Amino acid sequence: MNTGNIPKSTAHRISLYLRQAEAHRDQNRTTVSSEQLAKALGLTATQVRKDLAHFGQFGRPGVGYNCDDLIQRIKSILGTDQVRPVALVGCGNLGRALATYKGFERRGFRIAALFDNDLHKVGKRYGDFIVQDITKLYFVCQRDRIRMAILAVPAHAAQDVADQLVGTGVQGILNFAPVTLNVPPAVAVSTVALSMELEQLGLAVRSMQRDRQ
Amino acid sequence: MNTGNIPKSTAHRISLYLRQAEAHRDQNRTTVSSEQLAKALGLTATQVRKDLAHFGQFGRPGVGYNCDDLIQRIKSILGTDQVRPVALVGCGNLGRALATYKGFERRGFRIAALFDNDLHKVGKRYGDFIVQDITKLYFVCQRDRIRMAILAVPAHAAQDVADQLVGTGVQGILNFAPVTLNVPPAVAVSTVALSMELEQLGLAVRSMQRDRQ
Repeated sequence: MNTGNIPKSTAHRISLYLRQAEAHRDQNRTTVSSEQLAKALGLTATQVRKDLAHFGQFGRPGVGYNCDDLIQRIKSILGTDQVRPVALVGCGNLGRALATYKGFERRGFRIAALFDNDLHKVGKRYGDFIVQDITKLYFVCQRDRIRMAILAVPAHAAQDVADQLVGTGVQGILNFAPVTLNVPPAVAVSTVALSMELEQLGLAVRSMQRDRQ
Repeated sequence: MNTGNIPKSTAHRISLYLRQAEAHRDQNRTTVSSEQLAKALGLTATQVRKDLAHFGQFGRPGVGYNCDDLIQRIKSILGTDQVRPVALVGCGNLGRALATYKGFERRGFRIAALFDNDLHKVGKRYGDFIVQDITKLYFVCQRDRIRMAILAVPAHAAQDVADQLVGTGVQGILNFAPVTLNVPPAVAVSTVALSMELEQLGLAVRSMQRDRQ
């Protein structure tokens, strides 16, 4: 994934700093130090300071970072200080589960529309949404300026839907199908294959059991 | 993740080969060649042959791999030729969504029990399950020989529940909390932080938009 001027590893840690800063704030603490962030995340304080220096000088020596300030700056970098609309394509078991998952909205992403190509599903309600026909994808994404999408379709359909999403102007796809999507360089794709994660974990468990025998 | 004798990158590709072999079988094809596998996954045929050679000689030159044979061998390696029970801890939005997700069972993993520490949730039914009190975790995991768990609790509770899971004898944890878990070396952890995935994707999209300006 291309994250512009921020290296991918730094970008990943920034999401973790955000969650730590929020946890400190939720415990009514005003500040959090680079040492505290480092300890919680298994990093060095030097690494934390280096990462956060990407975003200007705002920590105070001996005091640390103001939690609200840190949260606000990170959200501004991530673009999650505003809520962005996301299209969800595929209303199978996983798609429906994701449609009703509240964790995205809290993080600055609002599922704005659900799509499926199965006429038995089109028109049905899941959570707050009525499933729309995939043929309306272009119209809805253009109208609502949707630039991100969640792809929860079967593996064999994923590339075709990804092509359609790219055609609508979507620039980021969170793909849950266990396939490698071909998209133009200007489109970011992140793949999360849940069953593969569990499969790989199962293999690791088996390997460790074998090593002990 | 430690996968014993199989390098992690190979292990990941094996999961992908499995899905490709299944797709070929579902299209009533008897065999799949290393060239076909390579093309579908953006690899070289040499890489595919090298990976599959880990598991003995079974491809036939000029013909390829018998799909059923390849599927059976990979499942045997992954341990998904038998169904393994998995405990799911945390019945918030994500946990409930995962409990009703059918994708795991098809892949050799059966959600065997749901747990929560919220007495408002204990006793409620989600999908095929009644939520059990987390205090029963040890008893149920021991009784049902559960060695894998899905952790879908809030970040602040994740380490404590992970410790409890390790105490029950669980050897693999699929963690959905956006935290780094400390577990003994003999326990495998894989973390999937969905909101972080979307956040990172959003950042990539923003970075690319900035680059174009």
